[in-house]
Amino acid sequence: MKYQVVVEALGNSKEISVDEGANLWQILVEHGYEVPAYCGGSGVCGKCKVQVEAEDCLVGQNSEKRFGSHDKVQETRLACSVVVKDNLRVKVEPPNELVVLTSGLVSQGIMKPRLKKEFITLSPPTLADQMDYANRIHTQIGTNSIVTSALIQLGSISKEEGFTVVVYQNKILKAEPGNTTQKFYGIAMDIGTTTIAIYLVNLQTGREVGVWSMHNPQQKYGADVVSRINYTLQEAQGRLQLQKVLLAGINGGIKSLAAKHKVDPQDIVAVSLVANTVITHLLLGVNAITIANAPYVPIFSDGLQLTALELGLDVYSQAIISIPPAVVGYVGSDIIADLLMVNLELNNYGLLIDLGTNGEIVLGGKGKILACSTAAGPAFEGTNITFGMAGVQGAISSMKLADDGNVEYAVIGNIPPKGICGSGLVDGVAELLRHGLIDEFGTFVEYSPLVTDFKGLKALRIVAASNSGTEDDIFLTQKDVREFQLAKGAVAAGITILLQEMEISKSEVSALYLAGGFGNYVNPRNACVTGIIPRELEDRVIRIGNGAGAGSKRYLLDQAAVTTGAELQKKIQYVELSSRLDFQTQFVDAMMFE
Amino acid sequence: MKYQVVVEALGNSKEISVDEGANLWQILVEHGYEVPAYCGGSGVCGKCKVQVEAEDCLVGQNSEKRFGSHDKVQETRLACSVVVKDNLRVKVEPPNELVVLTSGLVSQGIMKPRLKKEFITLSPPTLADQMDYANRIHTQIGTNSIVTSALIQLGSISKEEGFTVVVYQNKILKAEPGNTTQKFYGIAMDIGTTTIAIYLVNLQTGREVGVWSMHNPQQKYGADVVSRINYTLQEAQGRLQLQKVLLAGINGGIKSLAAKHKVDPQDIVAVSLVANTVITHLLLGVNAITIANAPYVPIFSDGLQLTALELGLDVYSQAIISIPPAVVGYVGSDIIADLLMVNLELNNYGLLIDLGTNGEIVLGGKGKILACSTAAGPAFEGTNITFGMAGVQGAISSMKLADDGNVEYAVIGNIPPKGICGSGLVDGVAELLRHGLIDEFGTFVEYSPLVTDFKGLKALRIVAASNSGTEDDIFLTQKDVREFQLAKGAVAAGITILLQEMEISKSEVSALYLAGGFGNYVNPRNACVTGIIPRELEDRVIRIGNGAGAGSKRYLLDQAAVTTGAELQKKIQYVELSSRLDFQTQFVDAMMFE
Repeated sequence: MKYQVVVEALGNSKEISVDEGANLWQILVEHGYEVPAYCGGSGVCGKCKVQVEAEDCLVGQNSEKRFGSHDKVQETRLACSVVVKDNLRVKVEPPNELVVLTSGLVSQGIMKPRLKKEFITLSPPTLADQMDYANRIHTQIGTNSIVTSALIQLGSISKEEGFTVVVYQNKILKAEPGNTTQKFYGIAMDIGTTTIAIYLVNLQTGREVGVWSMHNPQQKYGADVVSRINYTLQEAQGRLQLQKVLLAGINGGIKSLAAKHKVDPQDIVAVSLVANTVITHLLLGVNAITIANAPYVPIFSDGLQLTALELGLDVYSQAIISIPPAVVGYVGSDIIADLLMVNLELNNYGLLIDLGTNGEIVLGGKGKILACSTAAGPAFEGTNITFGMAGVQGAISSMKLADDGNVEYAVIGNIPPKGICGSGLVDGVAELLRHGLIDEFGTFVEYSPLVTDFKGLKALRIVAASNSGTEDDIFLTQKDVREFQLAKGAVAAGITILLQEMEISKSEVSALYLAGGFGNYVNPRNACVTGIIPRELEDRVIRIGNGAGAGSKRYLLDQAAVTTGAELQKKIQYVELSSRLDFQTQFVDAMMFE
Repeated sequence: MKYQVVVEALGNSKEISVDEGANLWQILVEHGYEVPAYCGGSGVCGKCKVQVEAEDCLVGQNSEKRFGSHDKVQETRLACSVVVKDNLRVKVEPPNELVVLTSGLVSQGIMKPRLKKEFITLSPPTLADQMDYANRIHTQIGTNSIVTSALIQLGSISKEEGFTVVVYQNKILKAEPGNTTQKFYGIAMDIGTTTIAIYLVNLQTGREVGVWSMHNPQQKYGADVVSRINYTLQEAQGRLQLQKVLLAGINGGIKSLAAKHKVDPQDIVAVSLVANTVITHLLLGVNAITIANAPYVPIFSDGLQLTALELGLDVYSQAIISIPPAVVGYVGSDIIADLLMVNLELNNYGLLIDLGTNGEIVLGGKGKILACSTAAGPAFEGTNITFGMAGVQGAISSMKLADDGNVEYAVIGNIPPKGICGSGLVDGVAELLRHGLIDEFGTFVEYSPLVTDFKGLKALRIVAASNSGTEDDIFLTQKDVREFQLAKGAVAAGITILLQEMEISKSEVSALYLAGGFGNYVNPRNACVTGIIPRELEDRVIRIGNGAGAGSKRYLLDQAAVTTGAELQKKIQYVELSSRLDFQTQFVDAMMFE
């Protein structure tokens, strides 16, 4: 049976005829709507929210009990968990990334497509016209070179019946029999220290086909980049091992993502990837030890281009892998990617904070861009926190403490909680402050009905064992507050130093862009309350979601982004904090609470 | 014990102190003298002849009986078979290739070296100067990019103690610890249908270190290129098989050559290779079927550049492999390589004939270059000749018939003869004509004391079984004369057509360059007598030896040759003979003898 789904987005409306039982998210993505799903549509990330109105009866998989028959019901739902059993009206809001994209703060659209795919028919050669086939193509479409693999392909296909070529900067990368212009894909990646996002992109339309997110499998060799570098020092094969697990992980992700969307990995002809400088080194198998120790100098920082074969990615062997430049050892291509999505200089001064395992801060305006990196530590990713965890299924992502000690919390994936992620930690500390349970030095006050004990440390009980997904209590402890103070002190001090260097006050910053998974989920008010970011900027916060991932996509699609990336690398002045006495002073100050 | 060897070459004299027992050829090559040895110094090819004068007593390995003690003896010897046991005076004549090189007909020397190797010491980075290592190198030596392999190497070597980089066109290909500027090698190859020459070249000095020659292992799949293409049609895996055996053969040759000269294949960072268009296709695994059938169109003809990794050559993985452009399906990069060594337009008109398995003819002058290819067939390489063989050890390379029927002959390697190679065939046919044993139609006259019988065919006995290396008689038969007529008719008709197209007479050609192994050994007078080349040009013949090999070396070393190669490709006008009625007429005429 067929149902009609009417989709409203950006003021337009479109009617789609779909089979009963179809997955709504799948349908939306297939029809080109920007409905992000970092979890690949598995109901985990909560990013694919849409407004759904059922015309007649039931929507949703498990909703029989909630909606009565024959009622019109409008509700916010995760598109990926909606199974079509009725005619539906769906409102798609521009996703977070698009909020930014459409706010005029970033350059949007593809200005100069990096690759193209063209269907060609050649006139047959004659004894009077013996020009070779490669040059026949060059003459027809304006290319000037061709890789060996494409020559081999060209030799084996019928030239007279028409064929399709993939072109990158006047070079032919691939030749295929028939018209395959519809099968034209790229991969954009954001390889974080903790998590990896892989985007499958239709290179013809520029649209995202799907997303795959996963943990960085290097995690087992160290939570942060410095411990991974140490691992390469301790183990003779350590560097190769770190490269191998990361490549294997990425290849697994690409394979799953491609299979999910019925895309042949051989049709993936371009890849962009962004990462911090250490991860980039480790991915390529380059020794990163010089980044770990002062003066923290990387082996390379310029943008790179190589083939999938060289890197070892399981896509088309001659696919172009592009990596944007890095600035220094602790400001990598991921930050350049953020800046491809945000023009800091648009309104006098803009401040970008990308809080992942490291905390990079960029302040730009009036022709000048300053950047610094703070050893924020992985506390914001849940590491070193007693019940900390990454922002994945089962993590408490927000919380609120009532006067009676009851904690209201939200859990990613709506399952019993297993721990606390970064945004939950911020909320927790903010609540401790609001209720006066910790003082300005971050020290818990005396035991009380609210302040209990966990292994000899004062602590707030967030979840009782009976409600916990791990069958243990979940606490926020004194140690966790101290870890938080170290992290937030570093970020706040970094902001202060950059403002000083730029010689401006906090209030001159017209926009504060929060990037990264943590930045996307954190409650801006609580980020201000706890002093991570200046209170003056609370109402100027713009969350750009995974800016690095979005920038990676732009780098994949838009040749202009390659130019901009190289310009940014040259323009950004890095402020090294480790050698500055004023940073130490600011850091100690900023660890306090106001 | 040490001896003094005084070497005289090109008017200069140099004294070298050498250990007793040293090999003279080795010494000469090590000191930069151009003493070619296509056999790699194994006493086979006879190319390394020098004049040797022993000051006091003995020279040579087996010469005790021939030279008395305390006599001064001067003799022509193969340098590779001379073992130093005395003070020697050696005269080195410019080898064939150098005769051409110094005649002013070709551009000599390296104008723009393609690669360089530089030793670098970097000033250590500081917190105030955190520039990455790659950009430190770029700043110091003017490079602007670096391949991933070199980044990996750079990461693992001490940057402070100095290191060495290989640079190709502002790109760093390799980084090595310490000063390795002396270990800097390239390979130049000429891959013929029948034979392959591999040259090991010192990229610092531009000098040839050694040569390796071998059969093309594809021979077992067909003597000529068309039969090899047919093999790829008949066998599903044929194309891969032909590529595989050729690569394996080349890799074996490179390995042997490098080992012989104690060169690490990882120090080989550049390779140039020239071949006819079909062999180039087959080497890259590209289908060549369109070249076999009219209109004979290749898949590609432009020059190519790829890495050793891509091609599958066992040298440094990122070594640059360069292939000059081809003109058409039957005028390949080997002919462009010839033309890199010979400027046809220098003295009005120049004619180049490269007689290998195919016969390519190029006529140039006054701003115009014409080329054609004749299906000369492999007769000149000994194929299809009753006792034919390639120009290798045991082949009769020249002969003279006395009135009494006695045949005087020279054998390559000075061993009992096993067969007749191309130059021997030409001499044989010329002698048949001189003695009136064949008529103007190439038909043997009646049986006589000189004209005997071989398997029912009239024939000339060249070698009696008692003197033969195969313990059989060796004959030149009526069938062989017919094969020769087909080959020479094609070449002579090709020359006539090119002269017609250029609208000049034979006598306006001021130089006739003979290239290829056959061209190098053939007796020019007999080539004229038998009508392969015009009699008018006998005294204008210049033998350029393996012009394609020499051109390949120049392409390896000289960036200017890359430009010239591309210009030649554009400039040369190909004259397709197969469709011309006038060619057929000329061909029939030219099969006759004058």
